Amino acid sequence: MIIKTLKWVGGINGYLEIIDQRKLPGEYKIARCCNVKQLYDAIKTLAVRGAPAIGVAGAYGAVLSLQKNIYRGARGGRRDKYKKNSAVSAISAVKLLKRDCEYLASSRPTAVNLRWAIDRVVKCAKNSMAGTLYELRKAVLKEADGICREDVEMCRKIGANGARFVTRASSPWKHGQDGRATISVLTHCNAGALATAGQGTALSVLYEAKKRGKKFRVFVDETRPLLQGARLTAWELKRAKIDTTVICDNMAAAIMKAGKIDMVITGADRIASNGDAANKTGTYGLSVLAKAHGIPFYIAAPSSTFDLKTKTGKDIPIEQRSADEIRFYNDKQIAPNGVDIYNPAFDVTPAENITAIITERGVIEKPNKQRVNRLMSK
Amino acid sequence: MIIKTLKWVGGINGYLEIIDQRKLPGEYKIARCCNVKQLYDAIKTLAVRGAPAIGVAGAYGAVLSLQKNIYRGARGGRRDKYKKNSAVSAISAVKLLKRDCEYLASSRPTAVNLRWAIDRVVKCAKNSMAGTLYELRKAVLKEADGICREDVEMCRKIGANGARFVTRASSPWKHGQDGRATISVLTHCNAGALATAGQGTALSVLYEAKKRGKKFRVFVDETRPLLQGARLTAWELKRAKIDTTVICDNMAAAIMKAGKIDMVITGADRIASNGDAANKTGTYGLSVLAKAHGIPFYIAAPSSTFDLKTKTGKDIPIEQRSADEIRFYNDKQIAPNGVDIYNPAFDVTPAENITAIITERGVIEKPNKQRVNRLMSK
Repeated sequence: MIIKTLKWVGGINGYLEIIDQRKLPGEYKIARCCNVKQLYDAIKTLAVRGAPAIGVAGAYGAVLSLQKNIYRGARGGRRDKYKKNSAVSAISAVKLLKRDCEYLASSRPTAVNLRWAIDRVVKCAKNSMAGTLYELRKAVLKEADGICREDVEMCRKIGANGARFVTRASSPWKHGQDGRATISVLTHCNAGALATAGQGTALSVLYEAKKRGKKFRVFVDETRPLLQGARLTAWELKRAKIDTTVICDNMAAAIMKAGKIDMVITGADRIASNGDAANKTGTYGLSVLAKAHGIPFYIAAPSSTFDLKTKTGKDIPIEQRSADEIRFYNDKQIAPNGVDIYNPAFDVTPAENITAIITERGVIEKPNKQRVNRLMSK
Repeated sequence: MIIKTLKWVGGINGYLEIIDQRKLPGEYKIARCCNVKQLYDAIKTLAVRGAPAIGVAGAYGAVLSLQKNIYRGARGGRRDKYKKNSAVSAISAVKLLKRDCEYLASSRPTAVNLRWAIDRVVKCAKNSMAGTLYELRKAVLKEADGICREDVEMCRKIGANGARFVTRASSPWKHGQDGRATISVLTHCNAGALATAGQGTALSVLYEAKKRGKKFRVFVDETRPLLQGARLTAWELKRAKIDTTVICDNMAAAIMKAGKIDMVITGADRIASNGDAANKTGTYGLSVLAKAHGIPFYIAAPSSTFDLKTKTGKDIPIEQRSADEIRFYNDKQIAPNGVDIYNPAFDVTPAENITAIITERGVIEKPNKQRVNRLMSK
């Protein structure tokens, strides 16, 4: 069944277990994040990734931060050193927690869920500052657990809201093409169980459609440079026994033209107040291609992905990642030294290219400022 | 200076030297093809690649074929065994040559230049069948040398015909974007010196523009799955001291939208009689994206790329390559076992997406059947 991407083990002295996604599909390895630095590195190096998942991970980061703070001055081991009446006051612990949270938030600047989750735990910590450190830590863990549980529920609802869209396109391109009995879906990157605490966003729609007995196959863009589609989405769809075909990103246009695609669905990392959506680099291009071929293009994302303070896509900061992600693969040099490399992690799909945004609160068809506002103020 | 991708060494008993492009950019290695099987493997595994280059290589393959045939029954070494009055007649040598040439042509079914070059040497062989085997071999080598020389000249002329198109786009997207002083060009795969016997097709246009003092920079699609853009085009442009930036294929759309691209130029492997052009997978998508962003899209290819017997792009056979090219990279598994992989080497760009086709005979603007015919009957 659907895998668990992250899991908090133990109580307030516990740690976060994650599937180390850098190792997939070759190796299925669980890694532990026992302090804020480890978690920062895990997020930064994409051991844990996907906007909702790093939101949940960030929330647990606050719990880890509060562990660290109480050890200041302690000389020995870790868990057994914990005392209810620590020398560190709740107030100063919250101060340090805020700093740690800023540090965590800086690991991936585009995804808004991380900021959203961190803001929630920081707010919760502030509200619990009056009590003991023990009470504070209990409260923050409870909040993080809540964010995690909500994420699972959010995924399920997105699936339920989106399943009806898994259907044949009425595109002029498809008619009489290959007499397929099944629907064909194209997805990019990984917006699945591996990207959330639950069963995913875009892929949740597919899991839900499968549960309802729909027959479909999925084309998966391998998603350069980090190959999340080939490595993660294909792996997770195969586990779920869904008919999966991996393609290179640059092949999507030709299979659209051949009438093989009925719908495109991806996740999102941040959605502006007008419906412009930032997602993995390559998503914008897919949206243009889908439009040109008359294929509906869906975004599936939790409402926490909306950043109403961001007016349009132009205001979304785009994370630039290391050139070496493109220059090398598995230690083999692909591009020569001495040439420039451009490696933005995301691009922005304008609202007018999006057929509908599927959220846990409902669906925004033909998204624009008004419709986004209407859903978000529900 | 411009590198030499292939070079015939010696006379009728000679061999073909090629730059082994599988090793670039890490290693610059010259490989020898001393018989038809070695040459077939070199073409099949893309040690030598690019439609014009494999045409020239295929022509020299006929010379290699005639070497092999005269050794039948010979017991010792190779070159010193050659005698003017061989036991094998010119007529039976031509029969075997035709079989060998069919075998060579089957190595890459999409590229029409290979077929075109092979037809030429076979025709030449047939015309020389009446003489001695020695005369036949002399004639075939002369024909292959001629094809090679013509290729060098063809490249130069394509550059001269195309250089004027290296200019700022009048696209509505570019205005007031970043105040760049230079022109920006996007290319895909490798249509350079490494793809021809001369200075390339698409890249020849750029080399010629540089010679004329134009200031421009080039964005290079890395070109999955075999990364010819990152490995070969970037390497060769850097050698030519052209400002080069490598991107992942899926980033092209976003940089077009950001107004960073003034023109797209690629090569072609086969052009149908109506102007539809088959080229490296991903080219079709680029043409759709260029159109959507108001950016001119050029194909640069020799007239031997035109296949007037092929009516439209639908009739062009598309070579399917091994799934392992996508499933593995440098021995590391990217996509899991148990999922399908789709790996077409080419896609077809319809004529209506092409601003102009630049050939050595002249330029076909807004290509269609009539205009293609007019140029080809010149």
